[in-house]
Formats: sequence, structure tokens, C-alpha cells
Amino acid sequence: MNIGAAISRSIKRSYMSAGPRFPELILSGIQPTGSPHIGNFLGVLSKWVSLQQTAHDSVTLLYPIVDLHALTIPRDPEQLKKSKIETAIVLLACGIDPARSLIFEQSRIPAHTELAWFFNCITPMGWLSRMTQWKSKLKLKTNSQFSEHDVLSSSGLCLGLFSYPVLQAADILLYKATHVPIGEDQVQHLELTRDIAEMFNKMFRQNVFPLPLPITTSAKRIMSLYDPSKKMSKSDPENTRINMSDPPEIIAEKIKKSTSDSLKYITYDPETRPAIANLVTIYAAVQGITIDQVVVEHGKSNIKTFKDALTQVLVEKLSPIQKEIQRLRLEQGYVQQVLKNGAEKASIIAENNLDEIRRVVGLK
Amino acid sequence: MNIGAAISRSIKRSYMSAGPRFPELILSGIQPTGSPHIGNFLGVLSKWVSLQQTAHDSVTLLYPIVDLHALTIPRDPEQLKKSKIETAIVLLACGIDPARSLIFEQSRIPAHTELAWFFNCITPMGWLSRMTQWKSKLKLKTNSQFSEHDVLSSSGLCLGLFSYPVLQAADILLYKATHVPIGEDQVQHLELTRDIAEMFNKMFRQNVFPLPLPITTSAKRIMSLYDPSKKMSKSDPENTRINMSDPPEIIAEKIKKSTSDSLKYITYDPETRPAIANLVTIYAAVQGITIDQVVVEHGKSNIKTFKDALTQVLVEKLSPIQKEIQRLRLEQGYVQQVLKNGAEKASIIAENNLDEIRRVVGLK
Repeated sequence: MNIGAAISRSIKRSYMSAGPRFPELILSGIQPTGSPHIGNFLGVLSKWVSLQQTAHDSVTLLYPIVDLHALTIPRDPEQLKKSKIETAIVLLACGIDPARSLIFEQSRIPAHTELAWFFNCITPMGWLSRMTQWKSKLKLKTNSQFSEHDVLSSSGLCLGLFSYPVLQAADILLYKATHVPIGEDQVQHLELTRDIAEMFNKMFRQNVFPLPLPITTSAKRIMSLYDPSKKMSKSDPENTRINMSDPPEIIAEKIKKSTSDSLKYITYDPETRPAIANLVTIYAAVQGITIDQVVVEHGKSNIKTFKDALTQVLVEKLSPIQKEIQRLRLEQGYVQQVLKNGAEKASIIAENNLDEIRRVVGLK
Repeated sequence: MNIGAAISRSIKRSYMSAGPRFPELILSGIQPTGSPHIGNFLGVLSKWVSLQQTAHDSVTLLYPIVDLHALTIPRDPEQLKKSKIETAIVLLACGIDPARSLIFEQSRIPAHTELAWFFNCITPMGWLSRMTQWKSKLKLKTNSQFSEHDVLSSSGLCLGLFSYPVLQAADILLYKATHVPIGEDQVQHLELTRDIAEMFNKMFRQNVFPLPLPITTSAKRIMSLYDPSKKMSKSDPENTRINMSDPPEIIAEKIKKSTSDSLKYITYDPETRPAIANLVTIYAAVQGITIDQVVVEHGKSNIKTFKDALTQVLVEKLSPIQKEIQRLRLEQGYVQQVLKNGAEKASIIAENNLDEIRRVVGLK
């Protein structure tokens, strides 16, 4: 997919009749919770890296480490600090070039929460209570005896978990992002962002914000190695995922112990063999080939042989990245400087836009 | 009431066994929505002014103009801008001394919304859904056919109206305020502030925040001139309130037309004669005398005579303040400078505290 051309087409389609065109700006965030894993890498990080080549030079690329979002769940403060720097290290090691893309800590730029407050004041409660992710969190705590309202009151769920999609909208619109690379699970939140942008523009009768468009990848979701019905996640136990920094013997161990079945061949059948299909997906994504190519190449392998082959391609793929991770871990001063520079540059865009927004709402 | 001594006593009581003592700091905010009225003045503004004399010199006094809270209801941006400067003018004209007290615009200090976000992440939804003011707003939109949850979803009420008590907690705790002058209607929100402070301190096992105490005044609430069951409010029609800047003929007109009854004498009987009781309350507060003194002095007056007397004391009280309002309206550069200086000084306290808080939660 030629992202540059696709973006230009979609912008034309979107804004031709919607007032001024907004300069192209791509933004996507990553949570600094634990070390990134291959699900993050194959899903979104590799897309961020490739955008550096495929997007036109005039397109600004912003990749905030969204540490404010990490607070919605209780975290150990020391751990959070470590995860932030580790996340930055992994981004750089994967190929994010700070000369082309800005990576920065969201919390260094207070305009995020300021704009979130403005949006709080125009976002109906109903829009948020209909978010699927919120409903599933509420459901986790639900007992059918009680009404949703009772559950809400007694769930102990914090306001941050309910309101974070508004902060997310602010993260995006603060920079007037026109495009957002996202996974399927974020489609509804980006829709909310567009709704908020539209509401604001209408309310204040000015075309302040673009309505950002998703950039979805053709990449399939990478699922848990243990439970292939769940997305691979930093919040699940270690053996359910391959971390970017896992050494070869750990990768081998995790792949070996990953859920499989007793058949003696490899197919791609997500319905009946979801665990094997997930391994095939990982193999294809790592190698940059199609699912079909994997099945042609490995169809007659037994599972052990295929798992060994998968381990090998993973180790090959991750090895240079891991060398870079090791190197950067010893260069934390440099990494901090990259984040600082990124925040300074992002801050110029943010403050400039927020100043306009403050005037529009009458605060200035 | 000797505020200084009372504060010292209450601090001693509260913190003797609760770790470090916090330096005394008094904070109270005013919304910049329309021009302040005598309800604001007799309730809270005159208290702010008197604290300048009664509080010990070492006590910091902060009076933010809480313009971010004004956004929870749709406002005309131009009107909001005007109201902010008008509110500052009235504060100064009433006797707030910028050499003693800091007055500043909340929105100039982004740390308010940053801290609010941290608090969003520890405040259970249930705490907020139990706030009386929220429930009454929800009820306004309620139809008994529907469950509270359905009402929530379809009410159109914005998230800001639900979450602003958390921003209020941040307004207070950002400065580690130990005391907050409040009216009765804010008691529950200050309780929430204390709950949030306590939750934060426990969660991060550090005594970061004081649990601020209310300073309540003996002053009775000033009610609407039209409907004495409602508090005098900027959001009700003009003839329900006396604005600080109303000229004598308007004051006379509004008092003359204020709700009364057909009895030929003056009593203080809030149950059976709420409108007259309200006028008596206003008279007592303006003159700085007791309700009993008013009744002794005016018991035998008919209503017209009493209303004339009330008009006279109001005009006398407001006249010097109004001269000062007129003068300051021509000195907007000075007023802007006062707000700027206030924000700069408040910002030093805010940034210093927020820096500590960022470290505690692991963002720095």
C-alpha cells in the first residue's frame, strides 16, 4: 500500500468540501507499560518505521509515548519510569529515526490534558458510556442481579478508565493530526475523536480541527501464545508473548510451550486451529510474506519442525534489534535527549494550536 | 471569628497525628460567568477580603478565577472573555489586595488539568455519580420511565459536568491548600477533595497532600429576589439578583419588585415568609449587624418602608465599590497585569508541587 498516495487521496476526499485543507500529520501513541512485544512490533511499530519511507517528506510524524494513559491502571512508579525509557529504546532500536519522527513523552506537554478538559466539556456522557472497551470493563465487574448503574457506582472503576478516550482525542487533535495508524480495537475511539472534532468545529463555527482518518494495516492481529482468542498483551503473563528483548533461548522456550494441537501438518485455519493460525500469522509477518506462502512452504512440516523454523526467523529478525536495544540501554543519556528534543519540537506545534483553541473558546 | 486562631487550632487537630504539617494556605475560586452579585459578595467575597486582615501574615491567600469550570456549560466566547476581566475588576474593587492575595486565571496554569488527570485515574466513578449536584442535574433531565443509566446515556449532559469536582479537587490540592472558604453547597465537593487527597496519599504511601478543611461563614445564604427557595444565581434572570455594578435606580427597581407579601410588618421567618426573611438577611449582612438587630430596628415598618431602607443601605454599601469598578474598567491594562503577576506567582507554587507529584506517580 502506498501510504503517501492513499493519504493524499483520502484527504482530498474528506476535506474537499470541508473548508481549509490541513497539512498532513500522522500521529500514533504507544503505552509505556512493560517492554514492547512482537505483537506491538508486527502490528503498529513496523508500520511506524515504514511510514518514514512511504510518507511524503512534508508529512509530520509524531509518536508520543502516552504515559498519562498508563496511569489509568495502578502502576508501580519505579516500574513506570523504567518502562518509559525501555519503550523509547525499543522504538529507536526498531528503526524510528528521531531525525524524521518525533518521539516524546506525552506528560511533558501539558496541553494534552488542557485540551482534554475542553473536550470533556463538549462530550456527552452517552458517547463514552457506549464505548465497547468501557462496556467490556464494566461487564467484567458485572453481576446480572444489578443494573448497569449500580454496577457503575460499586465497580470501583476509576473515572480515568471511562474518560480516557477523550484524552486520546486530545492527543490526536492537539496536533491537528490528519491520519492515525490504528489497530481494529481502536476504530471506535478514532470515530469518537472525529465526532468530538466535528462537534467542536460546529459549536464554535470554525474549522479548527481536521477529522482524522485511520490508517489500518493489512497485518493480522497477533494473538496470545497461550490463548489464541486473546490479543497478545503486555498485561498478560510472560509466557503468552515474545518480548522484543527476549533472548533466543527464551524465544525458543516460549514458542515450544505455545498452545498447539496434535495434528501432524500445518494449515491456516483460524476457526478450528486458532493457535496454529496465530503461529502462521506471526511467521508470515516476520518474514514479510503471505499466509499462503507460509502454508505452501511449511504445510507438510509437523508442529515441532514448524515451531523450530518460527523460532529461527524470530531470532533472526529480533537479533539486530536486540543488539541495538543492548547498545541503547548503555546510552540512556542519548535516549533522554531524544525524548527531550522530541518534546520540545512537539511542544511548538501543541502550544501554537492550543493558543488558537484558547482564543476560540474565549479563554484568551 | 478569629480565622487565624481557628485555622491554627484546626490544623493542629487535623495533622498532629497525620505526619508533616503543611504550611497554611487558603484557596477559594470564583466562576467568571457574568458580573458578580451581592450574593457572591456577602457570601464569599467579603470573607476573602476580611481574611486579608484576620489570617496571619504567613498564610498564603489564593483566589483563582476558575475559567475552566465556566466551560462546563456552553458560553459565548466573547462574553466569557469580558466576564473574566469584569470578575477580576469586581474582586479588586471589593478590596482584594493583589499585594496580599493572588488573583489569577486558572487556565493560565496548565498544572490544574494535569493534576486533574492524575486524580481521574484514582477517583472511582461511584464517588462522582453520588454527588448531589450531579444527581440533581441528572434529575432535571429525568423521566421516571427510564432507568438512571438510560437517562445518563441520553441526557446529553457532558462529561465536564460529571467530572468537574475532580478538577476542583486539583484546583485545591495543586497548591496543597489547607483551608477552603466555601458555601454550604460545596461541602460535599470538599469532602470529595479530602477523599481524593487521602486516597492518593495512601496509594503512593507518602503524605503528599493535606486534607483541606472548610472555612464556613456564619453568613446566611442570599436567595433569589424572585424565588426565595433558590440561591441567588448569575444564571437566573436579571431581576432575581442585585449585581455589584447595578446603579442606584436599578437597585431600587429590583428591590421594589422583589417578591414580598401583604403583611404590614417585618419579621424574620424563613418558613412562612421566606422572601421577607431573605431581605432581612441581606440587610443584616450589608450592615454587618445581626438578624435580631434588623427586626428590632424595622419590625414595625411596612414592607415598602423596609424595602426603601434596604435600597438605601445597598446603595451606600455598593457606591464606593462601584466607583472603583468604574475606575478599574478604564484601567484594564493594570487589571491584566495583576492577573499576570498572580498567575506567575501561583505558577511557582503549582509547578513546584506538580514536579513532586510527577515524581511520586513515576512520570519523572
